[in-house]
Amino acid sequence: MRFSGLFTKTLREIPAEETAKNAQLLLRGGFVFKNSAGVYSFLPLGWRVMSKVIKIIREEMNAIGGQEMFMPALVEKKYLEATNRWNLDVGFDVVTKKNPDADSTGSRQAGFALGWTHEEVLTAIASKYVSSYKDLPFAAYQLQTKFRNEARAKSGLLRGREFMMKDLYSFHADEKDLFDYYEKVKEAYMKIFERCHLRAIYTVAGGGAFTISNTHEFQILSDVGEDTILICSQCEYAENSEITKLKEKDECPKCGGGMFEAKAIEAGNIFPLGTKYSEAMDLKFVDEKGEKKYVVMGSYGIGVSRLMAVIAEIHNDEKGIIWPENVAPFNAHLITLFGKDNDFQEDVKKKAEKLYEDLNKNGIEVLFDDRKDKSPGEKLADADLIGCPYRLIVSPNTISAALCEVKKRANKKPEKLSDFQNVEQLIKYMK
Amino acid sequence: MRFSGLFTKTLREIPAEETAKNAQLLLRGGFVFKNSAGVYSFLPLGWRVMSKVIKIIREEMNAIGGQEMFMPALVEKKYLEATNRWNLDVGFDVVTKKNPDADSTGSRQAGFALGWTHEEVLTAIASKYVSSYKDLPFAAYQLQTKFRNEARAKSGLLRGREFMMKDLYSFHADEKDLFDYYEKVKEAYMKIFERCHLRAIYTVAGGGAFTISNTHEFQILSDVGEDTILICSQCEYAENSEITKLKEKDECPKCGGGMFEAKAIEAGNIFPLGTKYSEAMDLKFVDEKGEKKYVVMGSYGIGVSRLMAVIAEIHNDEKGIIWPENVAPFNAHLITLFGKDNDFQEDVKKKAEKLYEDLNKNGIEVLFDDRKDKSPGEKLADADLIGCPYRLIVSPNTISAALCEVKKRANKKPEKLSDFQNVEQLIKYMK
Repeated sequence: MRFSGLFTKTLREIPAEETAKNAQLLLRGGFVFKNSAGVYSFLPLGWRVMSKVIKIIREEMNAIGGQEMFMPALVEKKYLEATNRWNLDVGFDVVTKKNPDADSTGSRQAGFALGWTHEEVLTAIASKYVSSYKDLPFAAYQLQTKFRNEARAKSGLLRGREFMMKDLYSFHADEKDLFDYYEKVKEAYMKIFERCHLRAIYTVAGGGAFTISNTHEFQILSDVGEDTILICSQCEYAENSEITKLKEKDECPKCGGGMFEAKAIEAGNIFPLGTKYSEAMDLKFVDEKGEKKYVVMGSYGIGVSRLMAVIAEIHNDEKGIIWPENVAPFNAHLITLFGKDNDFQEDVKKKAEKLYEDLNKNGIEVLFDDRKDKSPGEKLADADLIGCPYRLIVSPNTISAALCEVKKRANKKPEKLSDFQNVEQLIKYMK
Repeated sequence: MRFSGLFTKTLREIPAEETAKNAQLLLRGGFVFKNSAGVYSFLPLGWRVMSKVIKIIREEMNAIGGQEMFMPALVEKKYLEATNRWNLDVGFDVVTKKNPDADSTGSRQAGFALGWTHEEVLTAIASKYVSSYKDLPFAAYQLQTKFRNEARAKSGLLRGREFMMKDLYSFHADEKDLFDYYEKVKEAYMKIFERCHLRAIYTVAGGGAFTISNTHEFQILSDVGEDTILICSQCEYAENSEITKLKEKDECPKCGGGMFEAKAIEAGNIFPLGTKYSEAMDLKFVDEKGEKKYVVMGSYGIGVSRLMAVIAEIHNDEKGIIWPENVAPFNAHLITLFGKDNDFQEDVKKKAEKLYEDLNKNGIEVLFDDRKDKSPGEKLADADLIGCPYRLIVSPNTISAALCEVKKRANKKPEKLSDFQNVEQLIKYMK
């Protein structure tokens, strides 16, 4: 894509009210636009990153047999009342502007909450289709906008009032089958974080009224994290400080290593729900012996827009974001620098156009900064800010070389010009 | 995918309250689940269809330079107040469950509407990035859940309270450029409908306070349509009955042919907005002469879930849906029929498994009904109801043949068994 074709630009000023680094970087780079506190638009560059994160998640969910579906954001009162969650102060309610369905009190109540999670909705759907052990197990997931009423939405995109989430739910005949699947999801989650170039710590967290044992979180170590975890320096066994009795320097209960305390961002969580929801909503099946039993459930979440923000929060330097290759908006950022010597302008342009064409043909996604009214300094700063993994420069200085200057965003210095004699060598280097 | 792996089933009974054919067919086939009046979940089969419709739309929007992005569903009051649309009785408002931001009246007002359209939001975003004629033109679109408070949501998925929409917005320096792009969008829309196997009639419709001339609709002829259009039998020039002075048998104002009246479903619409929104929200640019001018805009919508419903509404017979190949959940529906003779069970199974594997290897999407506890009648009825374009049967009757029985869903009779000597021939036939 040509830079001139993007309707967004990079911004020089840092918005005063945005104190979170992820939001600052994403706003400056033209990835997102802040519409309201905790409410963001994903601009073309940001949507490209989000789409790549979504693709990774989708592949890993499909690999463990997850069936993709799409449930409504409008969650009717009947669903949340069944589990006593209608009055929870978590989300938003939806009301009509005028009121065609006015009740006797004249309220504008439309009888919907904006879904912040979908256990009830999917349990109700499952009731229509599950009757026998033969219908189990199954798992279904969706990628969907979720809503939570964060009173003070800060931390940028780490904690939004509206955000993109992947939620997976699994349905089983017994607890053993649930926990077998739970392990599979754990492994799939670890793969997702790894593919996003994040080291996630599998952390024991609190259980509650709606789970049959402890839940587990996937924590990314970061100073801006809202969570504190105790983690073993040897085997990485970890517990959330909210539930642990462990302290700094205690012995690891698993391997005897030393525990240390760290701030972390929760990027995912998994819940062994057991029969809490199926009991509340009467989801039963007939087992092999003809006995009626409640379905055993699990639920598993990843904050997708949060994950994008975590990546920006972790992978950056003073100049901007350093996107991992799997989720970068483009593989390469191609720049033409013209300098002051007009004689070479046509040569630079031709050479860059040819390179752009050759890379596109070979399936390399390129952001081509062909702007003529920007200084070399501005173009180089934009490339660093946007943070594509490879920066390619065609300039009067590279005219005599076979190809272009090649620099990894993560490196300080460019590679040798002579290392790239043709496009094939460049592509090989980038892959 | 194996049928046994789908968590949904086909349903025999038609839900009493669903009078619309599209909803009946989609519910019976296990494509959707009705959560509330006008609110549906898209089950795995339905989500596959939706994803294919989305893919087609995305390709055609990208082809005319549309930049994909994603705006929030929570649209703050400030946006809609700027254009006097905050008090329009179209959508839903969002309120907090309790009220951390309570104003002096103690209201629960959160100050958000649920977006039913995004002209204001994108105009505000554009204000951040557009200052010169060099920043124009551009076009951006999104695929997003939209909300409208339909007092009596009927017509199944044709008119939902929550629905999937593609909305494109374009920004131009002058009206000529807008109308040039308007024509491009028209052509892209016609391609989208054609690829969905729908014949759309480009129809002149009403203008209004927010457009500079007539708008245009893409109408699909159907007895269940809520619109009435006057259409020329010769050149297909059409006007919506709401604005036209034409009557049945009048002469076509374009070609002199005869006009006739028909019911139709609006599947898309395009609006030449002009400067109405840019004036209301002060979106200006400096032109080549240094003069400040308002940006000229257009907006363009397609109801994506509605489009899926229109396809079901139009392409069906008494047995179920007949999906066009481009949007079918699977290319082929492979069935094993075992009959009463147990001797052939293993042969049938082996042959079908081999065929399933070969087709998958060749990129053919197959729904494989390998269920053993279902009668041949049930399996054949399910295949007709779900409506994949090709039905493949392996049974004791086809054991001596090279491959399997092949029947197009749209045809009454199967092809000759001897026509398919190997998988390559079958694939060639299906492509």
